[in-house]
Amino acid sequence: MAAIGLQNDGSVKRLAFSEEDRQARSLLTDWLIAAGASVHIDAAGNLIGRIEGTEPGLPALVTGSHLDTVPTGGRFDGALGVLAGLEVMRSLKDQAISLRHPFEVVVFADEESTMVGCKGMTGVASTTPGDYTCSNGAPIQQNLSLIEGNWDLLPKARRSDAAIAAFLELHVEQGGILESRGDAIGLVEGVVGQRRFLVRVEGMANHAGTTPMNARQDALATAAQVILAVQDLTTNNPGDPVGTVGKLQLWPNAANVVPGQVEMSVDLRDLSVDVLNDLVEELEVRLNSISQVSGCPITLAPQFSVDPTPAHLSVTEAIAASAQTLGLSCSPLPSRASHDSQEMGRRWPMGMIFVPSRGGFSHSSAEFTTERQCADGTAVLMQSLVRLDHRLNRVRG
Amino acid sequence: MAAIGLQNDGSVKRLAFSEEDRQARSLLTDWLIAAGASVHIDAAGNLIGRIEGTEPGLPALVTGSHLDTVPTGGRFDGALGVLAGLEVMRSLKDQAISLRHPFEVVVFADEESTMVGCKGMTGVASTTPGDYTCSNGAPIQQNLSLIEGNWDLLPKARRSDAAIAAFLELHVEQGGILESRGDAIGLVEGVVGQRRFLVRVEGMANHAGTTPMNARQDALATAAQVILAVQDLTTNNPGDPVGTVGKLQLWPNAANVVPGQVEMSVDLRDLSVDVLNDLVEELEVRLNSISQVSGCPITLAPQFSVDPTPAHLSVTEAIAASAQTLGLSCSPLPSRASHDSQEMGRRWPMGMIFVPSRGGFSHSSAEFTTERQCADGTAVLMQSLVRLDHRLNRVRG
Repeated sequence: MAAIGLQNDGSVKRLAFSEEDRQARSLLTDWLIAAGASVHIDAAGNLIGRIEGTEPGLPALVTGSHLDTVPTGGRFDGALGVLAGLEVMRSLKDQAISLRHPFEVVVFADEESTMVGCKGMTGVASTTPGDYTCSNGAPIQQNLSLIEGNWDLLPKARRSDAAIAAFLELHVEQGGILESRGDAIGLVEGVVGQRRFLVRVEGMANHAGTTPMNARQDALATAAQVILAVQDLTTNNPGDPVGTVGKLQLWPNAANVVPGQVEMSVDLRDLSVDVLNDLVEELEVRLNSISQVSGCPITLAPQFSVDPTPAHLSVTEAIAASAQTLGLSCSPLPSRASHDSQEMGRRWPMGMIFVPSRGGFSHSSAEFTTERQCADGTAVLMQSLVRLDHRLNRVRG
Repeated sequence: MAAIGLQNDGSVKRLAFSEEDRQARSLLTDWLIAAGASVHIDAAGNLIGRIEGTEPGLPALVTGSHLDTVPTGGRFDGALGVLAGLEVMRSLKDQAISLRHPFEVVVFADEESTMVGCKGMTGVASTTPGDYTCSNGAPIQQNLSLIEGNWDLLPKARRSDAAIAAFLELHVEQGGILESRGDAIGLVEGVVGQRRFLVRVEGMANHAGTTPMNARQDALATAAQVILAVQDLTTNNPGDPVGTVGKLQLWPNAANVVPGQVEMSVDLRDLSVDVLNDLVEELEVRLNSISQVSGCPITLAPQFSVDPTPAHLSVTEAIAASAQTLGLSCSPLPSRASHDSQEMGRRWPMGMIFVPSRGGFSHSSAEFTTERQCADGTAVLMQSLVRLDHRLNRVRG
């Protein structure tokens, strides 16, 4: 799969809706059919391979991830979860194991940018074309038709509550926590929530020579205090949040002028809504006091807010038990990146399995997880699905 | 004079070499001739109005400033010094005062950008056209010919040591010190020196979600400490230096990526070479310790260095005595902006007279000095010239 879109530097470029994306989906379709699945594509462009269960009328056990990448992507992000699902399907067939529930492997459309696939399946996808900015610059309607989706029928991609029993996603960690702990399996507690703000600092542009230090309203020096406050608030926190000022612009941006205005992003993420709310409250207090001392008004404008998606206890229990049975060391951690599971988990019981990323590298040619680690994660995925198949049966039966 | 280039918002746009600049120079030529001067333009584009003295062979007493402005300039910066020189010339004529020294009023070419005029007169102007970046984008050769200068003869603009006895410049303060002190006259101690650096911080660009706070090498958070160090070093200094980070760029500058690299300007100014050298030394110490804690290498690359130009005791004594005689309150202060006097003072005894700027505004339509304040400054300029004319005679005679 990594050969499709492979670049000279070892990175993979398989942008959503591109020729490479379509080649990858076509290849996977062949593999799914060979594994015994029936394959269809929904209106949101999700590619779904399905095997029916032995008991009619039960909701499906679903796994999957995505095949699209960022412009300089790695070989594992997304693809691992899809191919692990395929491998589970093949193994069920090889070992002649029949699940009572239907089993589905899903390739979600455009995870790296619009998330139109998972949002279409959960029913929260916008029906306003202008809300979508696709990485190839083309309109979403045209892009969906390129992968055999159908913009006009997008609302039909929504699955009913009763259609899905649980959703599992295997993914590389994209951080260095499992590697540093020496654990084979990460039991994802949930996908973190996010608060994004635009912070504006209003100073007074002035001559860098003639304006004495004590007469300045220096927007950049004030912004520097804000940057350090964001770092301090998140670093010295009993929870485990992260906070980033990643984007910053100043005016007039000239070496001989005291900066008059700064705009910057503040991005806060944590697994707990309470921690996020506390962080925002504390940040407001700090900004107030920074503003009073510097004499520069500071405004904090919300850009977007995504609540955390906790994993479901029934699924994490199945994952933990499976890892234990397989003799694999396993420890909990949050997912601090977005995933299809973040959306799926808002509608159905969700669980995620992480495997280690060497050096924590992600979205680059350096992204690497060993074959053994991939196999371990896939074994846990399969066991977890089988466990859920039994347990959910028991509960419902 | 302010009507030439006046904009709707009250600012003045009289860019060097523009039609407005040429109109202003032409108008001043008429006024100088009416005041009895002979007028010529040297190869560097300086417009020089001269009245001979009563004793042949003496060097000239020179005053002047510039008529060009920044794109949104004020009515006083530069023009006041030129028109005050004209007024002195008229008053000498009206009052039938004959100086023993020749007296010159100079309009220096392009003070706001290349300073080709004053540098040409002192003999330090580069003869490499590529060294000049003119605000209108045209080559310096063409620009000089527009104001009747002559690029090919630029070295000829250099005046000999014996040609000039002293140089005086009256200028608006461009800061708020005199206003806050309630003084009519600023006795300029000298023009500050300047050290300009490019500071580069090397971090590690990484995912703003998945990278734990304690695993980051955040170039922007590190740069924030540098910005605050520059502010702290200059604010809490027994001297009176200023320090500015006015320009900053970061990569990749995306809200969801931990900044991987920052480049920024650091500009330091003070009247004392020792203070400047101490500041640079202390800054290096601070950068070192910031770098060690953050794990981000920091480099400090010199961009340019201008040594301070102290005013000459003989001239400042004449200014102080004149202010006292006229009953005008007068106090010393540095000039923290560049002026033609900065270059002239490297060759000949130099003094500058400041008058207050309302609110400290400069390079904007808000720039304002009252008629009375302008007249007071001009009276001090005239008295000082007359005093120097007597005193220098005595010394040399």
